[in-house]
Amino acid sequence: MRRSQLLIPTLKETPAEAEVISHQLLMRAGMIRRLAAGLYTWLPLGLRVLRKVEQIVREEMDRAGAQEVLMPMVQPAELWEESGRWEQYGPELLRIKDRHQRDFCLGPTHEEVITDLIRREIRSYRQLPANFYQIQTKFRDEIRPRFGLMRGREFLMKDAYSFHGDQDSLALTYQSMYEAYGRIFSRLGLEFRAVEADTGSIGGKASHEFHVLADSGEDAIVYCHQCAYAANLELAQGRPAVPACDGALAPEKVRTPGIRTVAEQAEMLKLPQDRIVKSVVVMADDEPAVLFLMGDDELNMVKAARALGASQLRLADADEAEAATGVAVGFIGPLGLPAKLRVLVDARAARACNFSSGANEKDWHWINLNWGDALPLPETADLRNVQAGEQCPQCAGHLGIRRGIEVGHIFQLGDKYSRALNATFLDEQGREQVMIMGCYGIGVSRVVAAAVEQNYDDRGIIWPPAIAPFHVGLIGINMHKSERVAAATEQLYDELRSLGFEVLWDDRPERPGVQFADMDLIGLPHRIVVSEKNLEHGLLEYKFRAAAEAELLDKEAVLARLRA
Amino acid sequence: MRRSQLLIPTLKETPAEAEVISHQLLMRAGMIRRLAAGLYTWLPLGLRVLRKVEQIVREEMDRAGAQEVLMPMVQPAELWEESGRWEQYGPELLRIKDRHQRDFCLGPTHEEVITDLIRREIRSYRQLPANFYQIQTKFRDEIRPRFGLMRGREFLMKDAYSFHGDQDSLALTYQSMYEAYGRIFSRLGLEFRAVEADTGSIGGKASHEFHVLADSGEDAIVYCHQCAYAANLELAQGRPAVPACDGALAPEKVRTPGIRTVAEQAEMLKLPQDRIVKSVVVMADDEPAVLFLMGDDELNMVKAARALGASQLRLADADEAEAATGVAVGFIGPLGLPAKLRVLVDARAARACNFSSGANEKDWHWINLNWGDALPLPETADLRNVQAGEQCPQCAGHLGIRRGIEVGHIFQLGDKYSRALNATFLDEQGREQVMIMGCYGIGVSRVVAAAVEQNYDDRGIIWPPAIAPFHVGLIGINMHKSERVAAATEQLYDELRSLGFEVLWDDRPERPGVQFADMDLIGLPHRIVVSEKNLEHGLLEYKFRAAAEAELLDKEAVLARLRA
Repeated sequence: MRRSQLLIPTLKETPAEAEVISHQLLMRAGMIRRLAAGLYTWLPLGLRVLRKVEQIVREEMDRAGAQEVLMPMVQPAELWEESGRWEQYGPELLRIKDRHQRDFCLGPTHEEVITDLIRREIRSYRQLPANFYQIQTKFRDEIRPRFGLMRGREFLMKDAYSFHGDQDSLALTYQSMYEAYGRIFSRLGLEFRAVEADTGSIGGKASHEFHVLADSGEDAIVYCHQCAYAANLELAQGRPAVPACDGALAPEKVRTPGIRTVAEQAEMLKLPQDRIVKSVVVMADDEPAVLFLMGDDELNMVKAARALGASQLRLADADEAEAATGVAVGFIGPLGLPAKLRVLVDARAARACNFSSGANEKDWHWINLNWGDALPLPETADLRNVQAGEQCPQCAGHLGIRRGIEVGHIFQLGDKYSRALNATFLDEQGREQVMIMGCYGIGVSRVVAAAVEQNYDDRGIIWPPAIAPFHVGLIGINMHKSERVAAATEQLYDELRSLGFEVLWDDRPERPGVQFADMDLIGLPHRIVVSEKNLEHGLLEYKFRAAAEAELLDKEAVLARLRA
Repeated sequence: MRRSQLLIPTLKETPAEAEVISHQLLMRAGMIRRLAAGLYTWLPLGLRVLRKVEQIVREEMDRAGAQEVLMPMVQPAELWEESGRWEQYGPELLRIKDRHQRDFCLGPTHEEVITDLIRREIRSYRQLPANFYQIQTKFRDEIRPRFGLMRGREFLMKDAYSFHGDQDSLALTYQSMYEAYGRIFSRLGLEFRAVEADTGSIGGKASHEFHVLADSGEDAIVYCHQCAYAANLELAQGRPAVPACDGALAPEKVRTPGIRTVAEQAEMLKLPQDRIVKSVVVMADDEPAVLFLMGDDELNMVKAARALGASQLRLADADEAEAATGVAVGFIGPLGLPAKLRVLVDARAARACNFSSGANEKDWHWINLNWGDALPLPETADLRNVQAGEQCPQCAGHLGIRRGIEVGHIFQLGDKYSRALNATFLDEQGREQVMIMGCYGIGVSRVVAAAVEQNYDDRGIIWPPAIAPFHVGLIGINMHKSERVAAATEQLYDELRSLGFEVLWDDRPERPGVQFADMDLIGLPHRIVVSEKNLEHGLLEYKFRAAAEAELLDKEAVLARLRA
C-alpha cells in the first residue's frame, strides 16, 4: 500500500492523556484515536493488526473444534435476572431501556445468552459436548477507563462457552482450550505464561490465566525456571528457605522503646529479619484478626481473605488494631493476646526458631520465642507472597517473578449458569441432568496493546511479524527529486507485492529523517531503503526493526532476509 | 465439516413469529435464532454466509481504494448535538446514559464520528479525497422490529464516508462506489438494480439505491427492458400513452346520480378511463389542495409532496374534501372550484382530450371538457405512478416494474455534516474551505435475508454459490448400517476437502428422507449422495440444488460439475 493512500496520522509528541507505553505508541503511530473516555476508533494501520490477531484466534479456535457464532451486543434483562446477575453485577454493566421502556444491557459477557440458546437447542447427551465461540464487541462501563486499549469500555473479545454432560468431558475440552491458547499466543509471537489462577467466588474447579509478559504488567506472575509451573501471585506456593535451628534458647523480654518497623526491630536487636515474626492486624468482614508472618515476608491479601473465609478484607488502622489487641501497633505478639481474637500464622512463620516478636506491652519485645508448649501454635495457612529465588513447589528448580498482562482466561464454570437457567439434557439412561460449562476468553483488542507493551524501544513499536500491519516498510530517498530512485522504488514495490509481501511504501515527498522516524515508530519488521548512492552499486539498505544496524545487500539477499 | 460437529437445529415447522420467507427459512434451516425482538444470534451455518458477504464487500471496497477503519458503537451525545441530530433523530436513536450520567447513543450511523475524526486529522487539500469504511454492528430501535433480519434492531452494516475538496472529486468517488457496488452484488450472485433515488430532505446532489429483486420486496422499481434506466417509483418518469384527439367536442353537463368511483363513472358514461380526469383532495401541511389525474393513473404521494413543497402530505377525508371544495367527493372537477384553492394537474391529465370530470355539483358531471380558454390549465406537475409498459424516458424501450429490497444506498451528502461540525481544509491557495462528503451503505446482514427472498423454492433456500455456507452437501445412505457406504463417503469427503471444496457431510445416523429434506432446506449448491446400489456401478448421485432432477455420474463427472 502507498502510504499516501492511507490515513496514518503519526505524532511527534506524546499525547498528554496517554499514560502507558502502548497507549502512547498506538496513538503516536496513528493506529488508534480516542472518541470519548474508553472509546477508540481503529485507524487503518491499527485495524490491520487487530484483524490479524482476530484471524489467528479464529483459526486456532476452529482447529480446536469450537463453532463460531455471533450473539447480539444488546441483551434482554430477563436473562440476567434469571442468572441473578442483574442485581449482582456492579455498575460496569451498562443497563439501558429501549423505546418501550424495556430493560436491556450492553453485554460485557455472554454466559446468559449462550446458555439460553443451548437450553433450547440441545436436549440430548448425543449433542454434547459442544463449544461455541464468537469474536465480538463488548462493553464494560469502567468507572475510570484508562491506559488506552488496556482498560477501554468498548473492546473486542473472543469468548467461548462449552457445554458438557460430565466433569470428565469438561476437563478434556478445557485441556484442548489450554493447548489452543498456547498455540494462539505462540503464533502471535508473544512471550507469555499460562498461570494457575484463583477461581474466586464462583468456585469453579480450575482456572488458568494467560499473561503476556511485560514490565508494565499489572499482575505479578510466579514461574519456574526449570519446569512448566506458573501461577499468579495470589495462588503461587513456593518452598521458601527456613532458617536452620540449633535448638531453643531461653525466651527473654527486652525493652524496645519507640520501635515501629521490622527493620528497626532487627537493627536494635541485631537479628536477621527471618528471626522476627511480625504481626498484621486485618479487618475480615469487619471482624479483627491478627496474622503473623516472618519479618522478611509480605502479606498476600487474597490468600489471607481465602484463609479467613472473608469476602471483604482490609488492613486495620492503628486504632482498630489497638482496640482489638489492647496494645499499640509495633508491639503486638503471639504470646498473651486476647483469647477470643482470631489468629492465623503463616506456614513459614510457623517454622521460625528463636524468634523475636512483640510482647503485647508498649516498648517491649520478646526474643528467643519458639512455638511449643509455652506458646501454642495457632491455626496456620499460606499467607505470604512467594519471592523470587525460592524453590519451585513442583521440581527442584527455582522460581522467578515477572510482570504480566492478562490477555486470556479459561475457566471451568461448573453448573453456575446452567443450573440457574435450567439448561438440562437427557443422559444415556433418559434422566434429566444439568449441563456443566466451561468458558474461555481472549481480549483481542487488549492483545494488541499487550504486544506493544512487550515489544518496543525508544523509537517506537516493534511488531511481532505475525501481527505487523505490513511486513515491509519501503522508502525511496528523496524520491520526488530523483526519477531513478522513484522508478527503482516503484519497481521494487511491485515486485515485493507480486511475491506476496505486504508492503507499506512511504511515497510522500518528505525528508528522509521524517520517513525513517515514522517507519521506526510504526514498527514494521523489515525496512528497505532505496537511494541514489546505493543503486549505483546495485545495493539496497536493509534493516530488521529489532536489529541495531542496517545492512547493505543486493536484492536477492534482501529477499532472503524477508523470507527468513 | 461433519454435520454432527455443528449446531444446525433445523425445524420441520415454520415458527409462528416468522412472517416473511427469509425469516422462516433462515430459522428453519438453523441459521439464526431470536434472542429478543429484533435481536438475533447467528448460528454457525448462518454466520458462514454472513462472513462470505462481508468478505466480498471488504474486497471490493479495498479494490476501490477505500480505507477500512472501525469506530465505536457507543457514541457521545456531544457530536450529535453539534450536527443537530440529537434533537432531530426520532426514537430509533437509542439514547443511553453511562454510570456517570453522561449521554451517549448506540450508533445507527456514523456521520458524526467520522466527521469528527477527519476534521482533526485532515487539514490539507493534499490529503483529499479520502474514503473510509467500516463493517460494524449498528443499532436502530425500530418501534416494531419484524421480518427477521430484514428489519432487525441490531444489524451488520458496511458504511463508508468520503471527503472531498470539491464536487468534481465527490462525483468521481461516487462513480467509483457505484461501480464497486455493481461488482459486489454481481459477485454475491444476486439479481439487482441500481435505481435513482429521491435525495429527500437532506437535499444532496445525487443518490442511488441498490435493490435486490424479489417479489416480496417493499419497494417498486421501474426499469427499462432495453437500456440501463432504473429508478424507484417515487422518482421514475415514464412517457405514458396519451389518447389521440380528433378535435374538441362541445362540453355537456350530464346527470350522474350516486357516482363515487372512476369505474362507475366510466361505466355510466360509456367512456374509457383515459377520457376521465379524476380528483384527489390532499392535506399538504394541513392546507387542502386538489390534484387532477387521468382516470387510469395512480397518485404518487412522494411526487405530490415534492410538487406541493409539503413536508407532510396525506389524503383528505370526505369532510375535509367537501369543506375545501364545497361539493361532495365524487363530483369535484376543475371547472368552478373556489378560486383560492390550490390546484395541480398531472402532466398526463394535462393532455386529456374531450374528458369527463365532476361538475362541482352533487350528482352532475361534465363530459367533453378540454383545457383551454374556457377551462384554463392550472399548474402542472408529475404526480402519477409510472405503469409497466410505458416508454422509457431515456430510450425507445419499454418500462417494467419489479419489487425490490433495498440493500445499498449511495449518497452525495454535500456539506451537511462537514459544515455543522466545521470540517475544513486549506485549499491550494491556503484558503479554508468546508469539505464535501459522500456516504455509501450496504446492509450486510440484510443482504443475507434478501438473498433468501430472491432464491428459494418450496423445499428451502437456494444459496447463490458465492455465499453458500458450504459448497457441497454430502450424504451416505444408511451409512450407519453399511460399512461400505460409510468408507466410500468418508473417502469422498476427504478427497473433496483436499481439492479445496467446503463440504458439509451429514454424518448423522438419520433416515435418508430426513437427510434429503434437511439438505434441501439448507440450500447448498451441490448435493452428492453415496449409496450401496450406485457404488456397485461406480456411480454417485449428483444434484444441483436449483435443478429439477438428480443425475447418476461417475466421480470425475461429479468433480466437473462442482468446478463448473
